[in-house]
Amino acid sequence: MKAGIVGANGYSGIELIRLLMNHPLVELEMLISHSTQGSEIQQLYPHLTGFLDRRLEDFDADELARRTDVVFFATPAGVSKDLLPECLKRGLICIDLSGDFRLKDPAAYEKWYQQSSADTALLNDAVYGLSEINRRQIAGARLIANPGCYPTASLLGLAPAVKDGAIDLGSIIIDGKSGVSGSGKSMVPGNLYCEVNENVKAYKLGTHKHTPEIEQAVAAMSGKNESITFTTHLIPMTRGLMCTIYATLAKGYSTKEFLEMYERFYDKSPFVRIRPLGSWPSTKEVAGSNFCDIGLNVDGRSRRLTIVSVIDNVVKGAAGQAIQNLNIIKGWDEQTGLALAPIYP
Amino acid sequence: MKAGIVGANGYSGIELIRLLMNHPLVELEMLISHSTQGSEIQQLYPHLTGFLDRRLEDFDADELARRTDVVFFATPAGVSKDLLPECLKRGLICIDLSGDFRLKDPAAYEKWYQQSSADTALLNDAVYGLSEINRRQIAGARLIANPGCYPTASLLGLAPAVKDGAIDLGSIIIDGKSGVSGSGKSMVPGNLYCEVNENVKAYKLGTHKHTPEIEQAVAAMSGKNESITFTTHLIPMTRGLMCTIYATLAKGYSTKEFLEMYERFYDKSPFVRIRPLGSWPSTKEVAGSNFCDIGLNVDGRSRRLTIVSVIDNVVKGAAGQAIQNLNIIKGWDEQTGLALAPIYP
Amino acid sequence: MKAGIVGANGYSGIELIRLLMNHPLVELEMLISHSTQGSEIQQLYPHLTGFLDRRLEDFDADELARRTDVVFFATPAGVSKDLLPECLKRGLICIDLSGDFRLKDPAAYEKWYQQSSADTALLNDAVYGLSEINRRQIAGARLIANPGCYPTASLLGLAPAVKDGAIDLGSIIIDGKSGVSGSGKSMVPGNLYCEVNENVKAYKLGTHKHTPEIEQAVAAMSGKNESITFTTHLIPMTRGLMCTIYATLAKGYSTKEFLEMYERFYDKSPFVRIRPLGSWPSTKEVAGSNFCDIGLNVDGRSRRLTIVSVIDNVVKGAAGQAIQNLNIIKGWDEQTGLALAPIYP
Amino acid sequence: MKAGIVGANGYSGIELIRLLMNHPLVELEMLISHSTQGSEIQQLYPHLTGFLDRRLEDFDADELARRTDVVFFATPAGVSKDLLPECLKRGLICIDLSGDFRLKDPAAYEKWYQQSSADTALLNDAVYGLSEINRRQIAGARLIANPGCYPTASLLGLAPAVKDGAIDLGSIIIDGKSGVSGSGKSMVPGNLYCEVNENVKAYKLGTHKHTPEIEQAVAAMSGKNESITFTTHLIPMTRGLMCTIYATLAKGYSTKEFLEMYERFYDKSPFVRIRPLGSWPSTKEVAGSNFCDIGLNVDGRSRRLTIVSVIDNVVKGAAGQAIQNLNIIKGWDEQTGLALAPIYP
Repeated sequence: MKAGIVGANGYSGIELIRLLMNHPLVELEMLISHSTQGSEIQQLYPHLTGFLDRRLEDFDADELARRTDVVFFATPAGVSKDLLPECLKRGLICIDLSGDFRLKDPAAYEKWYQQSSADTALLNDAVYGLSEINRRQIAGARLIANPGCYPTASLLGLAPAVKDGAIDLGSIIIDGKSGVSGSGKSMVPGNLYCEVNENVKAYKLGTHKHTPEIEQAVAAMSGKNESITFTTHLIPMTRGLMCTIYATLAKGYSTKEFLEMYERFYDKSPFVRIRPLGSWPSTKEVAGSNFCDIGLNVDGRSRRLTIVSVIDNVVKGAAGQAIQNLNIIKGWDEQTGLALAPIYP
Repeated sequence: MKAGIVGANGYSGIELIRLLMNHPLVELEMLISHSTQGSEIQQLYPHLTGFLDRRLEDFDADELARRTDVVFFATPAGVSKDLLPECLKRGLICIDLSGDFRLKDPAAYEKWYQQSSADTALLNDAVYGLSEINRRQIAGARLIANPGCYPTASLLGLAPAVKDGAIDLGSIIIDGKSGVSGSGKSMVPGNLYCEVNENVKAYKLGTHKHTPEIEQAVAAMSGKNESITFTTHLIPMTRGLMCTIYATLAKGYSTKEFLEMYERFYDKSPFVRIRPLGSWPSTKEVAGSNFCDIGLNVDGRSRRLTIVSVIDNVVKGAAGQAIQNLNIIKGWDEQTGLALAPIYP
Repeated sequence: MKAGIVGANGYSGIELIRLLMNHPLVELEMLISHSTQGSEIQQLYPHLTGFLDRRLEDFDADELARRTDVVFFATPAGVSKDLLPECLKRGLICIDLSGDFRLKDPAAYEKWYQQSSADTALLNDAVYGLSEINRRQIAGARLIANPGCYPTASLLGLAPAVKDGAIDLGSIIIDGKSGVSGSGKSMVPGNLYCEVNENVKAYKLGTHKHTPEIEQAVAAMSGKNESITFTTHLIPMTRGLMCTIYATLAKGYSTKEFLEMYERFYDKSPFVRIRPLGSWPSTKEVAGSNFCDIGLNVDGRSRRLTIVSVIDNVVKGAAGQAIQNLNIIKGWDEQTGLALAPIYP
Repeated sequence: MKAGIVGANGYSGIELIRLLMNHPLVELEMLISHSTQGSEIQQLYPHLTGFLDRRLEDFDADELARRTDVVFFATPAGVSKDLLPECLKRGLICIDLSGDFRLKDPAAYEKWYQQSSADTALLNDAVYGLSEINRRQIAGARLIANPGCYPTASLLGLAPAVKDGAIDLGSIIIDGKSGVSGSGKSMVPGNLYCEVNENVKAYKLGTHKHTPEIEQAVAAMSGKNESITFTTHLIPMTRGLMCTIYATLAKGYSTKEFLEMYERFYDKSPFVRIRPLGSWPSTKEVAGSNFCDIGLNVDGRSRRLTIVSVIDNVVKGAAGQAIQNLNIIKGWDEQTGLALAPIYP
């Protein structure tokens, strides 16, 4: 199977390259980047020297259709909504890592992304690619809206409790902490080393685009619409994302009962690992891998559940989950090309 | 005025040295450290070369009484409860940076610190040194229990809203993020560079010693006992601490109304700075200084207040607030020796 | 005395603000920044809240002459050569932190900086502000060319040995390592967090602008022109600069004899600290301060001297030395406003 | 083929596990660690959860002989010299990642390591496992002394020039910069986060154990004994090591001619990548991989060659090269199990 990557020059694009080179059933055929077209990928990214001898090309849907079977869009918000339909209508499988096809409601997209939305029919067709939750729908899909990094960690952390009805949905608070690669290679002051190093910064309080995405998915799992409080923080590290999630108990489970429920829920999900009682995951323990590690604690005094969920934002939060979704679409083993252990330390 | 530091070899001790050398009314007379007694401080800490020509000495209450007027205890939990009373009875002003005299209830200390508590009478005498809140009691005190780093950021962030009754106390959730200097120079694996770097780690869920300290202070401000959910995270940075605090509104204030209330509340407190609407503080903006910067946001959708409160954990969270308290005890300007701008970047 | 800062919005400008606010004999009157004129400095840099209530202004030599006595230029290369002469002719003391007036030979400037040089007469008038070496010339100067960060650490490390004739000048190799603040707030990919973190990068081999500056100063000290090998590395930290300097011995001194020579040489220089035998400085030991710490080692086997010299690049390598030079010009104690201990850890 | 790891609990041991799990022809059978015997590896290192279900065992040569074919020693200096001979005499292939069998001269070991050396006969038998240089000897070996991290980067950087006679051996200066994982998990103050972060530190000037190892290998390549100046620096990062090497030209080659010579020399070495003219490698570009990337520059003014050589110290500087050596011993493709791209960023 031949693949193309649109936005191959960004961090998610580069990670797709690393992972797909390791995939036995996919061959990287086209690297698309408007801004760096014509350059050799090895010159832009010398770490790839000896691995991939390709030039970046400009976007051309016909060329993509001629040479590839699947296209990954690792582009900023607002790009794939225009380019992806061209690929879709030419019969390509499209996996979009941006937010353009995640929200079902065009008005929500326009409010949170501050621009016009993708075609409504396509929004309806798009399958939300949270692999562990939506396997069945993903299996037959042509258009995957790959989840955002914060939603991935949040929703995998929440899903068992939400589906069980064990927590009060209106009480959910998500405190997210992310490394800087999440904001890509954007040339903004906030991404400069001297601004990030030795610093923790809260940002976009009440306005982060991942908020409606999380709410929509919680509503899909529970059948109820509730507002969720979601706050994000920039942490001085490159990779890694943690969501610490708080919710009031609706059922009187103990930590141990929650752990058993989570173990059962993710029994068939090799990329979700539940920590034993009294142990909580750290981001380094999933670095470079497609895992989501989850730890739980019930505070008996406050009748509140705390969920600690970690991922590598560039892998499970972007490129890795995209490939996992391709595996599911094609009916391959979900772990194909992704069975790498985290790098530690 | 002459000062002694017990535990001068740790990070809080070293910071007391840096700040007191800059204090016009205090002279550093004795540096106490059992483990490194006999060594010259400049040899242990070459950055002090040319500033302070002193050897570390062993603890001796008589000697302290003879040569000093005030003693700072920058010692691990469980040390000052035994040594400090010896200094107190010899007439010295005692400022304890450890947790030994913070909890009024001996049973709470024994439960959370897992060791026997200080003398109950002294626990009653000790004044909780949260400078901005307890100025009046601090003014006449001989024994100050200097607050922990997390409680300082949390309580300064909560105080105006709690005293106003504007939030539901039972709903308070504190998500704390701290640099590593907070855990001192302890030789534990968790403090090794390779374990901390490129990592975020949640720790001590439901068991952190600062929990009862925060609850006790909130109860003192509100008259009501409520359990608070408090979670701590280790962040890859040396200095800096942020508490992101969540609470459900009890009154229907807007962000703007909260900001005005906070501005009024801290009108006479030069070390607390309230951020304007739409701006939230980052830890680097207080690095090396005694400031606590606070930003606020009301999420109208969820009727919840988010408070972002940052300090330098070694300054306002330890050595700086200790000196601020000495200034208050002595009736000096609160900023004496502490009027330094943060170092940026 | 009233001061203006041109380029107040960059990292050196911000550090000048921090240090001058602490200077008892200088008042900050004008902050100049073309790109951010009209903004309040506290809004751009919230860490200054409560310290300095000023708006950034556009450059206006008449206004500077009317309101200030000394002007610091913390501007990128190529700016002060045009603006500074306007201030100089209006009688202002001018201290240039950029490279525009450092090289006496206009052709050298044009070769290494790739642009036309400043007026030759002014190049001749400019005094190279390496405080510890050129005190006498600085004392009467109106135009100071403040040294670069690498040259400061290199030349203070080399001066005693070079002046003594103890090393072979042609053998000098300088291996420089710098934190990222040295390259300012430039929006270039190489300054992004994700590119710098967990990375060491060698850059500008054989082409770094500080090369001719170091060679010119070594020639001035020795009377001989020699090529020096100078290599620079970007290190994942914000502040701090180390030069490890290698040279073949011309005289058979032991480490101990070198240490004694260096101690004597810097006897009257409070900002240079020589480490005892067997101890070498690290950059953190001078963080936030105006010190240059130096350690020495003679390798008997290879007859080679190794010099380890560290500074805070933003202080002794820029803003601190500029203020030290103003102190010398005005005949004030060299340490005025600069007597702060390093911040550790 | 079955493998055992002695010292499986340290960073090199853990990296051997990560890489061997990915090796198609080797199965991990025994994990040995005296200090943590009895524990499950997944409990000590939760990042391995789901990968390896094994308990750490105590060292037992008979058991190793019974269950494995090859043993890796990832132990501190002074351990393998006693344990390894027991395995060797039981017919196991032994690959020692420590320094115990690297120096041919027992007196040199005793001088630099400050303890008694291994058996002299075994020192003679041991093959120095610098894969790219000693392939032929490695092919038939039973005992490999795997090179140190600094020597690996230094010698791969030097080999072509040394073998060609293109540089003056007595002029070689190696300025090494390493991440902290190189010093393992040792509980020493210098490895604490707060001491390493925002800091560069020169250490062990003139006394680093890798000095005689480099000199011995240069002598083996050139037939001449020369003293080399070697200085090491600790850099605030976890993984990565750079050696910047300086040498005076013995032949008048240009940079281009050196590059061609290096390309030819490493033509059959897939793990050494030579950078094109004007480009120098950074450590991040080899992170997590077994590559050694090399850049070159001739400074025509000083007639000096500068070589920049980078590796991941835990991979090519330890575990990766050890596996590469096993591949060579067994006649497998050198890249078996090691063909992973670096992780970037």
